[in-house]
Amino acid sequence: MIDIAIIGAGPAGLSAAINGVIRNKKVKVFGNPPSTSYIYKAERVDNYIGMLGINGKDMMSEFVNHAKEMNVEIQTGKVIEVFPMGEYYMLNVANEFIEAKTVIFANGFSKGTVLEGENEFLGKGVSYCATCDGPLYRNRQVAVIGDSQYAEEDTNYLAEVCEKVYYIPLYKEIADLSAAIEVVQGKPKRILGEQLVRRLELDTRELEVSGVFIIKENIPTTKLLKGLELENKAIKVNRFMETNMKGIYAAGDCTGRPYQVGKAIGEGNVAALQAVSYLHKLK
Amino acid sequence: MIDIAIIGAGPAGLSAAINGVIRNKKVKVFGNPPSTSYIYKAERVDNYIGMLGINGKDMMSEFVNHAKEMNVEIQTGKVIEVFPMGEYYMLNVANEFIEAKTVIFANGFSKGTVLEGENEFLGKGVSYCATCDGPLYRNRQVAVIGDSQYAEEDTNYLAEVCEKVYYIPLYKEIADLSAAIEVVQGKPKRILGEQLVRRLELDTRELEVSGVFIIKENIPTTKLLKGLELENKAIKVNRFMETNMKGIYAAGDCTGRPYQVGKAIGEGNVAALQAVSYLHKLK
Repeated sequence: MIDIAIIGAGPAGLSAAINGVIRNKKVKVFGNPPSTSYIYKAERVDNYIGMLGINGKDMMSEFVNHAKEMNVEIQTGKVIEVFPMGEYYMLNVANEFIEAKTVIFANGFSKGTVLEGENEFLGKGVSYCATCDGPLYRNRQVAVIGDSQYAEEDTNYLAEVCEKVYYIPLYKEIADLSAAIEVVQGKPKRILGEQLVRRLELDTRELEVSGVFIIKENIPTTKLLKGLELENKAIKVNRFMETNMKGIYAAGDCTGRPYQVGKAIGEGNVAALQAVSYLHKLK
Repeated sequence: MIDIAIIGAGPAGLSAAINGVIRNKKVKVFGNPPSTSYIYKAERVDNYIGMLGINGKDMMSEFVNHAKEMNVEIQTGKVIEVFPMGEYYMLNVANEFIEAKTVIFANGFSKGTVLEGENEFLGKGVSYCATCDGPLYRNRQVAVIGDSQYAEEDTNYLAEVCEKVYYIPLYKEIADLSAAIEVVQGKPKRILGEQLVRRLELDTRELEVSGVFIIKENIPTTKLLKGLELENKAIKVNRFMETNMKGIYAAGDCTGRPYQVGKAIGEGNVAALQAVSYLHKLK
């Protein structure tokens, strides 16, 4: 069992990780590749003290190197859901199930809006995880809404099992999509059906599908862990980065403004030490 | 008039300073030399991400260089008191009076205990500032309680104006003290007098003095600004590093545990941006 599972491999998550490791805890980070962090695209960062004039890419690579030097385990993979199990939590990481005593949310700023029908049909045709739910749609028609090139791999996998896959990219340049997939331009409007999903409505056309996969870099926090309290769309925390749920902490952009590297580093630092203190009380 | 006056030139203060400057505010930092920061003595710091394995001295010098490269003005000097003036604040920096629209407290962890009689006789024989109050004790006897070698310069100055100076060092090695000064070993117990100070009682002996100078690296926060709310001996702040007084922010060790560089950097970052947002509303 992991002591501290960290969701997100950006500045907050990595800062939390090194602080957990330095306190001899078993730590594991689950996240998207560093290039998906907002800071990665920054041309120049001057206000993280000690790294004057660095660009976001180099900054992220220094952070990742620091973490790796300290033997932080970073697993590339998306956390789909976190389940409370009493004294610990269970994470579904792309259908691999991982137990952790504490969890630090460092999953960044969630820009996603929720589609009409998305909540209603979640688990009834709407899915966030191709690997998890793809087999349920064998020989059926599905639509995939992807917000970055990282969604294409999942879509290609679905094309292997499903009868027909429509792909709705929410970005410009498609990188590597199987020929069998039909790319549909348009803005998703709503998901329709009765007990189960029947159609996806776009502003351009309507698709007859029995599954809608929404493959975004960030799963909305409310979907990740039921019962986690938000405030102004951010995870509500106190000064010790504690959330309303025991053993659950949050750090970085997911806790709200300002969206800054320094803040993220500091919050990761505090969240990890608070988790360590909670772990000591568990014993 | 300064936009943001920062009390303390450690990690929190310098992080706040670069964030104020980057937002085009007129910023000035008042503090002790970098070597007085707790972190300066650290042999090795591994948990400030991006600076693996650095020692405290090098870390502080990187922080100071970063701030100087960004034209942050750092004035070595002790802030004695902060006075609310309505829409702005007045700082007494060793008897130089400085106006600022906002103030960020980054004055570190105050380890000082208050002597019996210290509060009672403050301004009636008890002083925290040799430069300010020395002339009042011309041709009289005074005692100086110093908690570091930095107090010696003040004591030497007092020896020039006073009839007799007793020096009670709260540390081991005296560096450079005038021959005229009488060093007294002992632990200060209480300050006695009637309307004015008459005696300083130590566990070893008693001194007949009309002034007691307490020259510590940190002046207790409660003395610095009357009305500032504390919680567990730390400055009480919310998640935006706002205190109970408008235009007053705090960051770093002075806001309480954990005493960590990462936390200090993050809080300095947030405090400065919140001050900037307040300054924009002032206009």
